[in-house]
Amino acid sequence: MCQLLGMNANTPTDVTFSFTGFAQRGGKTGDHSDGWGIAFFEDKGLRHFVDHERAVDSPIAELIRRYPIRSRNVIAHIRKATQGSVTLQNCHPFVRELWGRYWVFAHNGDLKDFRPRLHSHFHPVGATDSEHAFCWIMQELSKSHADVPSVQELTLTLRELAARIAPHGTFNFLLSNGQALWAHASTHLCYIERRHPFSQACLCDEDLSVDFSAHTTPHDRVAVVVTAPLTSDEVWTPFRSGELKVFVDGACQAF
Amino acid sequence: MCQLLGMNANTPTDVTFSFTGFAQRGGKTGDHSDGWGIAFFEDKGLRHFVDHERAVDSPIAELIRRYPIRSRNVIAHIRKATQGSVTLQNCHPFVRELWGRYWVFAHNGDLKDFRPRLHSHFHPVGATDSEHAFCWIMQELSKSHADVPSVQELTLTLRELAARIAPHGTFNFLLSNGQALWAHASTHLCYIERRHPFSQACLCDEDLSVDFSAHTTPHDRVAVVVTAPLTSDEVWTPFRSGELKVFVDGACQAF
Repeated sequence: MCQLLGMNANTPTDVTFSFTGFAQRGGKTGDHSDGWGIAFFEDKGLRHFVDHERAVDSPIAELIRRYPIRSRNVIAHIRKATQGSVTLQNCHPFVRELWGRYWVFAHNGDLKDFRPRLHSHFHPVGATDSEHAFCWIMQELSKSHADVPSVQELTLTLRELAARIAPHGTFNFLLSNGQALWAHASTHLCYIERRHPFSQACLCDEDLSVDFSAHTTPHDRVAVVVTAPLTSDEVWTPFRSGELKVFVDGACQAF
Repeated sequence: MCQLLGMNANTPTDVTFSFTGFAQRGGKTGDHSDGWGIAFFEDKGLRHFVDHERAVDSPIAELIRRYPIRSRNVIAHIRKATQGSVTLQNCHPFVRELWGRYWVFAHNGDLKDFRPRLHSHFHPVGATDSEHAFCWIMQELSKSHADVPSVQELTLTLRELAARIAPHGTFNFLLSNGQALWAHASTHLCYIERRHPFSQACLCDEDLSVDFSAHTTPHDRVAVVVTAPLTSDEVWTPFRSGELKVFVDGACQAF
């Protein structure tokens, strides 16, 4: 199984603290050593890093731990290969363009016998079930809407699409187009919303703590979604099975 | 004006030497300081780095100068903004997926009044004339062929498409799908093919030389395409205006 990390914030925020703990699971505190990847939105632009080395000793992961890239939407993934070999084209997150926006997708789990025909313009480059499912979601979104719909409309469509894929196996995923972060759980996914008053937190995977109040303003709001809690002294809310949540400006939305 | 760098080789090769000289033009020996980018194919997979900082002092460019990423097809670009602001979504190279392959494109020059209607699935995310032209090329390729055609067929189609865009301005570009490197010149582009027996070369933009014979085997072949010669002691062949060349396995092809 792989591990997912997502971040959504109302102001550009760096994920070096969360990524430092998360990256330890890529070969040190976890055996997810078959590559990793991370994507950062900056406005509509995207920085996308993938590597088939272990996150714990990849020079590119080291750069990301040290160089604070500020973003309002981040998706990261460390991989334990179940389908598809350990090559760059099989590393998550995957990226496609639709309606003049980049879409980023990462998946944790295994889908059995989900290989719907892809009759539109989205085709997988690698060999994973995950990228196939992502291309199908992109195809169905492009058929369902003529242009970028509202976050609320997208959420309704994505809930329908996720419900059609989920019966084929384990389908925990993160998706973002830079406007929102969508997260769907089959099994393991939890989240936290950090807001004023900010406090201190300690990583579970590394001997490191941070005092968020020293790095934030009272207006900052940040939501973090992850496979397993990253910190030992905060309360993380687990997703229910089959739940799709959407985060905008660092807050889980009611719709 | 921007600067382009392309590399095509018959064996995975690192571009740290060429990139070191090239990156100096991003703020030190040249005024191309409005961001930069580089894309490396590894098999069908892609590493894509873009940054709106100057290449000469970007931490990500520093990583690429130090960490030898080996690739058979590389496209790099340093930007001097003429159209579109200095934001991440306007940094070249641009990437799209077509027929289950990634396509990478970078452009040097200015296109006037070339905004054809994009009626297919490819739309620009940023505001540059370059990305608009790339999306149009992708659209026309997808209409001209049902699946990935041969490199020879693609070259014929691309020659027709380039000839339709070139009259609108300056259209020096590099394009790759991981199988070949296409290069089109309106004004400034030159190339070199390095093969056995390899010799030494000195960079124009930095006090650095390399003895290629120490890093190669007799079977290696590497072609480098660039806006202006990178080395002072090798013979670079200039493109003729309107010429589109294709490089496969480190050699310029006759078709």
